[in-house]
Amino acid sequence: MSKKMKNIPIILMGCGGVGRQLLQHVVHCRPLHNNMGIHLRVVGVCDSKTFLVTPDVLSTEFDDAFLMDICQTKSDRLSLEKHFDSGKCEASPYSEVRRKLNDIAARLGFVLVDCSASSETIEVITQIVNLGGCTVLANKKPLTGSMEEFDQLFLQPRRVRHESTVGAGLPIIASLNRIISSGDEVTRIVGSLSGTLGYVMSEVENGKPFSEVVKAAKDLGYTEPDPRDDLSGMDVARKGLILARLLGQRIDMNNIKIESLYPDKMGPDMMTLEDFLANGLPLLDNDIEERVKKASSDGKVLRYVCILQNSTCIIGIHEVPKDSALGRLKGSDNVVEICSRCYAHPNPLVIQGAGAGNDTTAAGVLADIIDLQDQFPYTNTGN
Amino acid sequence: MSKKMKNIPIILMGCGGVGRQLLQHVVHCRPLHNNMGIHLRVVGVCDSKTFLVTPDVLSTEFDDAFLMDICQTKSDRLSLEKHFDSGKCEASPYSEVRRKLNDIAARLGFVLVDCSASSETIEVITQIVNLGGCTVLANKKPLTGSMEEFDQLFLQPRRVRHESTVGAGLPIIASLNRIISSGDEVTRIVGSLSGTLGYVMSEVENGKPFSEVVKAAKDLGYTEPDPRDDLSGMDVARKGLILARLLGQRIDMNNIKIESLYPDKMGPDMMTLEDFLANGLPLLDNDIEERVKKASSDGKVLRYVCILQNSTCIIGIHEVPKDSALGRLKGSDNVVEICSRCYAHPNPLVIQGAGAGNDTTAAGVLADIIDLQDQFPYTNTGN
Repeated sequence: MSKKMKNIPIILMGCGGVGRQLLQHVVHCRPLHNNMGIHLRVVGVCDSKTFLVTPDVLSTEFDDAFLMDICQTKSDRLSLEKHFDSGKCEASPYSEVRRKLNDIAARLGFVLVDCSASSETIEVITQIVNLGGCTVLANKKPLTGSMEEFDQLFLQPRRVRHESTVGAGLPIIASLNRIISSGDEVTRIVGSLSGTLGYVMSEVENGKPFSEVVKAAKDLGYTEPDPRDDLSGMDVARKGLILARLLGQRIDMNNIKIESLYPDKMGPDMMTLEDFLANGLPLLDNDIEERVKKASSDGKVLRYVCILQNSTCIIGIHEVPKDSALGRLKGSDNVVEICSRCYAHPNPLVIQGAGAGNDTTAAGVLADIIDLQDQFPYTNTGN
Repeated sequence: MSKKMKNIPIILMGCGGVGRQLLQHVVHCRPLHNNMGIHLRVVGVCDSKTFLVTPDVLSTEFDDAFLMDICQTKSDRLSLEKHFDSGKCEASPYSEVRRKLNDIAARLGFVLVDCSASSETIEVITQIVNLGGCTVLANKKPLTGSMEEFDQLFLQPRRVRHESTVGAGLPIIASLNRIISSGDEVTRIVGSLSGTLGYVMSEVENGKPFSEVVKAAKDLGYTEPDPRDDLSGMDVARKGLILARLLGQRIDMNNIKIESLYPDKMGPDMMTLEDFLANGLPLLDNDIEERVKKASSDGKVLRYVCILQNSTCIIGIHEVPKDSALGRLKGSDNVVEICSRCYAHPNPLVIQGAGAGNDTTAAGVLADIIDLQDQFPYTNTGN
């Protein structure tokens, strides 16, 4: 018996936490996607050293057992090189990826999924999209380089999806694109887009010293190994830049005013992590405490947010009303408030929920892949 | 000079508030959509009496001046019959619509937009979709008939969009479809999906008598002319049914437990509107006041919600925690809380904002139309 199916070839770059979780989701969702008339056919995977591809991308795919093997390999923190001799794939060094992907794109339309953290994928992604392929990004860096690179990639906007670059799987990009395409002009976006800094700001609100809250967040695994990677605001700034560019702002990272939560003299090049935690961080407590008190006396609380308004993008601590969606935020949820003609102040569109984690980030990537299905033709598959 | 464009033909059923607003949005968004490489070509409009269509659907369209004339006609509460003699269209009586639309569908792929409130459009919509066309619905009724009708329409799920059937333009359906397609199993949805009842429940929370709040809501224009149309819960039940069916529940309206906010003996067939407002409604004050007090003593507040859980759909007054997104709701905003694996209790995905009004409802319809663009081929248009 044959069934009308969409057959969507996928090549994955980056098999760390999110990429690995994505492969697991793909396997787990087989029955669901089969019911939807969709088959996701993984034909290549790539880590920072090695590119594995099926012997014939037109007719073969990695079977689920092999995909699970790959997940195990990456879970064991080993390289994909391990699978060289499996007989199930051809392997190339990473330096060959671009040439290989171009060769494949000439023969096959596929979705190039970027779950890496590399700043070097933008060229190959753009090339694949402009050759007729599609891309789904969890990696923010391809979208936060030069404006020219961004423009080149979005020459084919319908073949590019990147929900998981802002707020993980939260439907922020999809919703914003709907608002924009309906001509509902966005006047302001305020977002708490770091689970880590959301947690920190809601805890200091309760009177706890900043230094203790940051150390607790580190112990809970909420922060990067060096919490300064969160406290610098750079990650929030990348998300802010992506939203700003969707709104039509033609800006770069260096046009964004970013408030770091530690001074330059406590930076990683000036102070060891241990020194920062023991001696630097406590010096910051008083200032934060003063700001919390000042805000509180005005019925407000502090949040670390990105604010997009009047063609600018500002990243930093901001006083927000206690009884707004942002002000009521607790724990590590993300929230965005979008004001527009239809969602006018003080009643913005609010989207809130978990904005981090491999599971939800990979779910956002998978939803993006499925949303690209109309780019692929039906094939009659024996079933 | 020629430019690669998507040319999307549209036929609109229902030119009342939402339909008329949609035509205005379409005209207003011409420059935006042109930049996106999209031209929306309105080739037909239909009210309850008359179907107007361009003389040649393959090559002509209603120009913007004519679309604005149509808006004016409907704003003046006149029939489209008025345009019979304009020379810009062919006209048919409503009884011919189905045959006419089938004829057009045989020659042209188009989007059939249902902004009517009719329960009789389901057959023609299904027919058009199964002939290769697309549909966008603001009208809930085609989705709330029999399960069989629903199944027939969703044989081609990618060609059906209906964001504005639940929460107006709020991105609820789009977000839910993303969650479902990523295999993130939804365990519970609780939604306050009536701006009117949201307003009523948040006002009685402050100690005002139910009867006075309902009358105030009527005076503010928040309710239907007969507020019992809101208080019956039927409109919320239709939205609940649509969400339930998206989650895979195979149920009909008569499987839904609906709590009406007035007893049968005060129904429109038993009591005039005047009698209900003057003598019926005040009799309900005590009961609501008691329930508000009881909830309050548990740290909760009352909300009129739909609850989807364990394959059931329940509509009625429900106690919710004061400090949840639902509990904090004020005014006429809609809110939904979606619990799933990725958005687990007590941290649901929350979507909140204006859930009514012609502007936002029509914006949701327009976003749906634009989202269907991949169903239409590029054409080279002289520009």
